[in-house]
Amino acid sequence: MKYFLILLFVAFVSNAQIKKEQLDLMPWPQNINLKEGVFALTKNFKVNITGNPNPRIFVGTTNFLRRLDGRTGLFLTQGFITKVNEFPDAELQINCVQNGKIGLYEDESYQLDIQSNRITINATSDLGALHALETLLQLLQNSSTSYYFPSSTITDLPRFTWRGLMIDVARHFQPVDVIKRNLDAMAALKMNVFHWHLTDDQGWRIEVKKHPKLTNMASDGSYYTQEEIKSIVKYADERGILVVPEIDVPGHASAILTAYPEIGSKMVGFSNGTSEKNMQSTALATYAIERNAGIFNPTLDPSNPKTYQLLSEIFDEVCPLFPGAYFHIGGDENEGKDWDSNPRIQDFKKKNKLVTNHDLQTYFTMKLIPMLKKHGKQLMGWEEIMTKDMSKDAIIHSWKGVNEGVPAGKSLVDAAKGGYKTVLSNGYYVDLVYGVEEHYNVDPMPKNAVLTEEEKARILGGEATMWTELVTPTTIDSRLWPRTAAIAERLWSAEDITDVNSMRKRLKTVSFRLEELGLTHIKNKAVILRNIVNNQNSDALNEFSNICEPLKKYSRNKGGTEYQMYSPFTLFADACTPDAADALEFEIAVNRYLENKSVENNDLVSSFFKKWIATNTSLINLSLNAPLVQPILPLSKSLSDLSQQLLLTIENKQAPNSSLLNDLLEQCNSKDHADVELAVYSSLKKLIGVLKQ
Amino acid sequence: MKYFLILLFVAFVSNAQIKKEQLDLMPWPQNINLKEGVFALTKNFKVNITGNPNPRIFVGTTNFLRRLDGRTGLFLTQGFITKVNEFPDAELQINCVQNGKIGLYEDESYQLDIQSNRITINATSDLGALHALETLLQLLQNSSTSYYFPSSTITDLPRFTWRGLMIDVARHFQPVDVIKRNLDAMAALKMNVFHWHLTDDQGWRIEVKKHPKLTNMASDGSYYTQEEIKSIVKYADERGILVVPEIDVPGHASAILTAYPEIGSKMVGFSNGTSEKNMQSTALATYAIERNAGIFNPTLDPSNPKTYQLLSEIFDEVCPLFPGAYFHIGGDENEGKDWDSNPRIQDFKKKNKLVTNHDLQTYFTMKLIPMLKKHGKQLMGWEEIMTKDMSKDAIIHSWKGVNEGVPAGKSLVDAAKGGYKTVLSNGYYVDLVYGVEEHYNVDPMPKNAVLTEEEKARILGGEATMWTELVTPTTIDSRLWPRTAAIAERLWSAEDITDVNSMRKRLKTVSFRLEELGLTHIKNKAVILRNIVNNQNSDALNEFSNICEPLKKYSRNKGGTEYQMYSPFTLFADACTPDAADALEFEIAVNRYLENKSVENNDLVSSFFKKWIATNTSLINLSLNAPLVQPILPLSKSLSDLSQQLLLTIENKQAPNSSLLNDLLEQCNSKDHADVELAVYSSLKKLIGVLKQ
Repeated sequence: MKYFLILLFVAFVSNAQIKKEQLDLMPWPQNINLKEGVFALTKNFKVNITGNPNPRIFVGTTNFLRRLDGRTGLFLTQGFITKVNEFPDAELQINCVQNGKIGLYEDESYQLDIQSNRITINATSDLGALHALETLLQLLQNSSTSYYFPSSTITDLPRFTWRGLMIDVARHFQPVDVIKRNLDAMAALKMNVFHWHLTDDQGWRIEVKKHPKLTNMASDGSYYTQEEIKSIVKYADERGILVVPEIDVPGHASAILTAYPEIGSKMVGFSNGTSEKNMQSTALATYAIERNAGIFNPTLDPSNPKTYQLLSEIFDEVCPLFPGAYFHIGGDENEGKDWDSNPRIQDFKKKNKLVTNHDLQTYFTMKLIPMLKKHGKQLMGWEEIMTKDMSKDAIIHSWKGVNEGVPAGKSLVDAAKGGYKTVLSNGYYVDLVYGVEEHYNVDPMPKNAVLTEEEKARILGGEATMWTELVTPTTIDSRLWPRTAAIAERLWSAEDITDVNSMRKRLKTVSFRLEELGLTHIKNKAVILRNIVNNQNSDALNEFSNICEPLKKYSRNKGGTEYQMYSPFTLFADACTPDAADALEFEIAVNRYLENKSVENNDLVSSFFKKWIATNTSLINLSLNAPLVQPILPLSKSLSDLSQQLLLTIENKQAPNSSLLNDLLEQCNSKDHADVELAVYSSLKKLIGVLKQ
Repeated sequence: MKYFLILLFVAFVSNAQIKKEQLDLMPWPQNINLKEGVFALTKNFKVNITGNPNPRIFVGTTNFLRRLDGRTGLFLTQGFITKVNEFPDAELQINCVQNGKIGLYEDESYQLDIQSNRITINATSDLGALHALETLLQLLQNSSTSYYFPSSTITDLPRFTWRGLMIDVARHFQPVDVIKRNLDAMAALKMNVFHWHLTDDQGWRIEVKKHPKLTNMASDGSYYTQEEIKSIVKYADERGILVVPEIDVPGHASAILTAYPEIGSKMVGFSNGTSEKNMQSTALATYAIERNAGIFNPTLDPSNPKTYQLLSEIFDEVCPLFPGAYFHIGGDENEGKDWDSNPRIQDFKKKNKLVTNHDLQTYFTMKLIPMLKKHGKQLMGWEEIMTKDMSKDAIIHSWKGVNEGVPAGKSLVDAAKGGYKTVLSNGYYVDLVYGVEEHYNVDPMPKNAVLTEEEKARILGGEATMWTELVTPTTIDSRLWPRTAAIAERLWSAEDITDVNSMRKRLKTVSFRLEELGLTHIKNKAVILRNIVNNQNSDALNEFSNICEPLKKYSRNKGGTEYQMYSPFTLFADACTPDAADALEFEIAVNRYLENKSVENNDLVSSFFKKWIATNTSLINLSLNAPLVQPILPLSKSLSDLSQQLLLTIENKQAPNSSLLNDLLEQCNSKDHADVELAVYSSLKKLIGVLKQ
């Protein structure tokens, strides 16, 4: 019997010769060579580490074992790995030549060789070895009864050295566990820079022991202690991730000025006289933590020496918490209104021959460079800091594009040509809740610009940005993942890896696997839906959510005042995500039907309409005991009405009534309900367009 | 139109006069008087706080607003509450006479009065007011379009002063966020003591700065820093919860002895000579963090002065972290084997006239009392510490029962009669994964013992215990909740609140509402199931999970060695829970059918069988691409086979084949598959018993 099983297994294995297209690797490696045979995983599978690695590889390999455990239920016997060469005969051998340093330009390459009886990882350092372990986990395959790795050789290294994710923890504070699980997700996608937007108008989120007023007065009690910062930096380090802190100055300053109004630029209190004292005492009452979203006036006073003293003291405490070589000082969206209206600042400009507010901001920013240099830190800022007098040491963070009235990523090219190192975020604003394709198609290396090799080398990479005006700890994962994985691939993989269909297929598996790291993008959707239906059966609402997407760009939360930063986002739009699952399915169905009106394709399209009609009925029933369902009904009714007409039409029971269909279609194009839009609108429009002919 | 709507609302309201039975309050209040009318909730709803409360009421009330926000989507305008009397005209007035102290015997009573235009909470302190806010949240009702509180008057106070939950963070470490969300759940159920089991054989989980070896060598890197401890204690304080730390000595000492083998009792190393040095050097190699479950020998040496020195130094650091007046020193399950085999300890016993190991343990425990008293702490220990010489100041934690070969809670009565204050945990071991009814029926006040009023007063209350041999951060919530809520009711509500059906009905709502606090007992089940089916559709597996329960008592993980502490529990049994949802439904269906074999009741019972047959088919299909489904198939097949026979029988297509039915039934009684048992077995047995007649 045993012999028979072995034969069966061999038979299975040779039949199962896997093809590259079947692998759900992301980011796709630079070189992959599949061979015949497999490495079969057993409970006694063991790992051995050799060379001179940083101890982070022990943590990473132990975590690797536990993730294999979780997926396979094998519960491998090997426990914690704490030193090199513990099991010289282990099946998986990891060799790291040297200790990896967290930072840019490190050699992150690895070689992974899987043979039927042995797996070998060779890497310059533990950083590459960690990447190799992620690739190995993604390679795991299964039959109906067992798990295996396909025999193969992979050599891999990143295309860009800066593969970043920014999280804004000021708008909505994100607790330690949220950050940690997202660091896990980043590492799983081979991302290596976590940019931590720690301050903004809506809150100061980092403890500064010398200035407890910052968190006492400007954080609502939601901030990271220095010990928590250290714990996150360590966690990131263990995952090969550099942490770049951001303290955003001189604009976005409502929070810092709530604690220190005396360094604000606002000119007030003339009615009480113009003495310094009166002005300041009035100013004290003027700043407050911002509760809305938008661009606000509170700005630091660049003419006030106290401004630099405070910032210098803050940097003295904050810099040592972050061992990395980069410090982001923001510098964005300073409209200078309070500078313009403050005669003292105007005087200061004249005195210092600063013509524009840009010049004044550059004056300000240049003062920060030595403060940071003192701690071995290079200054980085949003593109607004790039003026003619800005030091070439500064790294320019390119973020503006068509939405801001300039060509996409223009500043990136300007920076590279101007001699600055630069990082692209335009096109990677995942908070805008665009579909994944929008981001996947954006390459940090500009296609329309002619750049020298030297200029190209200044383009460090890219960074997804997660601004959190509309995002809570409950929903942030679904706003980040899985889409950010596609950006990670853009930043790691070869330039010609651009097949959207392949990416979408692989992304499904990536999304599923992120759950094993504790990511909540799937499970928290169910939580929100359960709350909306008031603990009734949420299947119908889930169906509807699969064709709805939250309003894109910043069209939700009109004027930035419809919701406040303390509003918990537990609405239907918060359960919905970009890339609505059924919208793509419906698009495929419509295209098939339009190509060939076979019975089968007719049935396929009809099944959607029938489902949406039934969903609408269910939602009406649910709404009887669920007020939160009410705002969804108008849109659901529109779709149901249109579905009924379309059913009659495609079942040939009724000739297409062009004007009725158009009216109903346009009702489905509404963005007035529940902060969502129907993601099937364009497919419906296409279908109706043809039907009317 | 507006006038019409108002009329409609009034009409609705008067029709909706709610009955007590409709309210899903838990724990049920001492007095509740429902009146006509409702308080309608609007976006401008505001709260005002008066009196002399502890600032925790500001946190609690702000959280209350956000929870109302989340449920209703109203997103109330009121933001953070930071001081008394901010909105004197607010609809909700909370008055606290005095600052509540965290500890036992505090006045936790409250009065809640809801009128159509005003809600008033009166409480002696903020502690009662926090309870009132939880009751108010539980009172929230809705129509199809709006939310309201029913007019009512409630006066309430707890029956017992100790309403505890213990969490073992040694077996499986539970990170800060796990503890915090469970503190939220406790507060929602008006529980007030968090007993934190911080050390055991499997790990030392608290930083001791003077002795970093404890965490460096005996925690695998998983422990709480002192800052994290403080943060949790503060979080608990804000929720009116006392934290009682436990450092378990002299047994359960594998971890502490891994760091400090020199204070262990084990006698080894004679082959190298009997000099102190040789013995110690051998002993050093003998202790290790325990990876299995069970009762182990490593025990502190009570004859060694260094033992007391180390413990004293530990207490000196640990005690100040916990402002409460109680310190738990464990003291359980010391079998004394290493004492018996150590001649030096035997000599010590003789010298000190200690006859039994119990006497020796008492000697040891008595030495700890002054160490704790020095920090204002009263010693508490598991019932084993209660011997004739034990100080009456010690609090006795009663845990043994029938499973341990003694009458349930015997030590509780002994303690109360013996002059000790005491707390009951026997009957509240939620980690045994019994059904909720098992715990709900256990009253801390023994029914079979005659106690004087004074003796009764020594029974402080009860405490649910969550030992974590088989429980990870992913699954702990589903092992705790919602069942612990029923224990919370037992400890708070009147003795005669014992209607199991009412409890079960209310518990459903409680369970749902716990999700708003971030509890993961519902959503993580879906995560585990998705992993098992390998990202295929998990509906069928979910169906099957709704009639399966994890093996009870300690019958899972045979011998304590089948799984290790580092095994992630991602198996089917980990997704299943006690009180399997469909098992009760099936029981009701069977009872109805046996009462009246109407077509309707026949259909009802049949629908279960048809579902289980279909589920089995689906599971087989899923298993083709999901090895983790394989272990579930035999049980599913057994149920499917039996279902087919029963269908034939009850549809009168076939006379009952008694022996075949019996055989198939007994296959459904198997506990050999996937660590679960079929929760419908007893109902099936009942049905078959009648059918065979």
